[in-house]
Amino acid sequence: MFRVGIDLGGTKVAFGLVSDDGTLVKKVSIVTDRNATAEELTAQMAQYALEFIGSCGIDRKDVRSIGIGCPGACDNESGILILTVNLPFRYTNIRKIFSKYTDIPVYLGNDANCAALGEALFGGGKGASTCLAITLGTGVGGGIIIDGKIYTGFNGVAGELGHMVVRKGGVKCGCGRKGCFETYASATAVIRETKKAAIKHPESLINELCGGDLEKINAKTAFDAMRAGDKTGTALVKTYIKDLGEGIINYINIFQPEVILIGGGISKEGEGLLKPLRRYVFRFSYGAKMLPRPRIEKAVLGNDAGIIGAAMLS
Amino acid sequence: MFRVGIDLGGTKVAFGLVSDDGTLVKKVSIVTDRNATAEELTAQMAQYALEFIGSCGIDRKDVRSIGIGCPGACDNESGILILTVNLPFRYTNIRKIFSKYTDIPVYLGNDANCAALGEALFGGGKGASTCLAITLGTGVGGGIIIDGKIYTGFNGVAGELGHMVVRKGGVKCGCGRKGCFETYASATAVIRETKKAAIKHPESLINELCGGDLEKINAKTAFDAMRAGDKTGTALVKTYIKDLGEGIINYINIFQPEVILIGGGISKEGEGLLKPLRRYVFRFSYGAKMLPRPRIEKAVLGNDAGIIGAAMLS
Repeated sequence: MFRVGIDLGGTKVAFGLVSDDGTLVKKVSIVTDRNATAEELTAQMAQYALEFIGSCGIDRKDVRSIGIGCPGACDNESGILILTVNLPFRYTNIRKIFSKYTDIPVYLGNDANCAALGEALFGGGKGASTCLAITLGTGVGGGIIIDGKIYTGFNGVAGELGHMVVRKGGVKCGCGRKGCFETYASATAVIRETKKAAIKHPESLINELCGGDLEKINAKTAFDAMRAGDKTGTALVKTYIKDLGEGIINYINIFQPEVILIGGGISKEGEGLLKPLRRYVFRFSYGAKMLPRPRIEKAVLGNDAGIIGAAMLS
Repeated sequence: MFRVGIDLGGTKVAFGLVSDDGTLVKKVSIVTDRNATAEELTAQMAQYALEFIGSCGIDRKDVRSIGIGCPGACDNESGILILTVNLPFRYTNIRKIFSKYTDIPVYLGNDANCAALGEALFGGGKGASTCLAITLGTGVGGGIIIDGKIYTGFNGVAGELGHMVVRKGGVKCGCGRKGCFETYASATAVIRETKKAAIKHPESLINELCGGDLEKINAKTAFDAMRAGDKTGTALVKTYIKDLGEGIINYINIFQPEVILIGGGISKEGEGLLKPLRRYVFRFSYGAKMLPRPRIEKAVLGNDAGIIGAAMLS
């Protein structure tokens, strides 16, 4: 049997056929119609989903469900997409609109949560009962997976793991508060600190690596400098790992998940990041001296995690 | 039908008969035998539990289960009490020892979690699907209740809600880190800040309220001074509510629980604390402007919450 996962984005909508064992069998995407209303977009999604199923050469009866990862707040119980940031959905009853086109059950999930679910079930968290996924990208996103299901909270928007204040009065965050985990652990934070350090330390290799153009600094630059033995790069990475580590210790003390999955651009640093991170985290997290420790692993499914997770919604 | 809840403490062990609707029908306690081994203590508990059931005039068959709230880390699946701080338990198989005396099923839970469960099911959280209980006492304890059950994490020690760093490099915490929520939101924190303020502001009513003896300052003193119009007291409470509020916003962004229950000594301030706290929290928490908001309420069961919650373990 199969399931269809849809990743609804502001620029494209991706459709994936996923087998019960989590294999992404086929994937296509269409450009998001930015002039369409929420209802029109939903109808397009439904029609295209059916077309996609047909194109896979399988019968509709072989599809258990259609799951949609949405960029915003949704209520899977009612099938309503409550709100999106870059799309026109406002309390749109997705399930009702889909039901005009098909009787395949339709489920909704937040896109970051869907990615977490995909990773938890078939990626780095495979086999774990509880899993926290933390994505270190432009912001810090995440998802909480308990017993193989997304934990959404009572209003559907739980799991804003980037928006935990870790440094009261710290860097201003887009959410209106100051000192959120996101403002220290995101790729954006790494770039900001790398730029500052490049100015402060003209002798640093960082300035060479970016060819003297600070705008060419990315989240990898400090790590590259460190690998080349640069003092400033090494200090930047050390500070970053502590900041990331403090947030992760918080999450361990709260959740004690079996696995913490680190995804997003910065996770590409792999064990170079994860080894010192584990060392820092397990010095201070509750129970680490006497009890089984959560595993801290790299997310492995990349961009497919969202579609695979959406397909697994129920 | 009934259940038995046991609150295992360092000074006394309390036994309660609890009906299915959460009513604490009868309660007795015995002094904890500090000279006994873990095995002896467990045997005593089992024997006394049966004696207690007999003294209630009910048949053993009318007792669904016995639940034990333990001051430490335990594994309800295996029935093993892993570790306690002030008692001699170390990987003690409580369930196995109880089985020598009775075939009534025996369950284990952490004591703070049991109190959270009692409050969630029959106290301030009655009827809520998800509930976070936060106890503001000497430290900050808590429990996470999801779908009417304690969330324990994969190793049994989740829910250390006081040990989330909210102010990096802040006040030193007993857990080895700096700036934990506990060091700003506990009664201990209020007392510490009140003493400091009394010294800094000799004109403050606080000095009068404690009769010039700083050691007589308690967690209520600043609130009393505020109520009498004292400037220093007012400022202390305002700062405290912000510190408490920041932690609670963090927990809302993570969990979006239907109810947050505030317990412990400071919760006695009631609406005088909760009203401004809600005002602060809902200015900044995720979704508060558009989605249903978590309720922030006072815990109501007091010391009985632990026994009632223990009885409801499964």
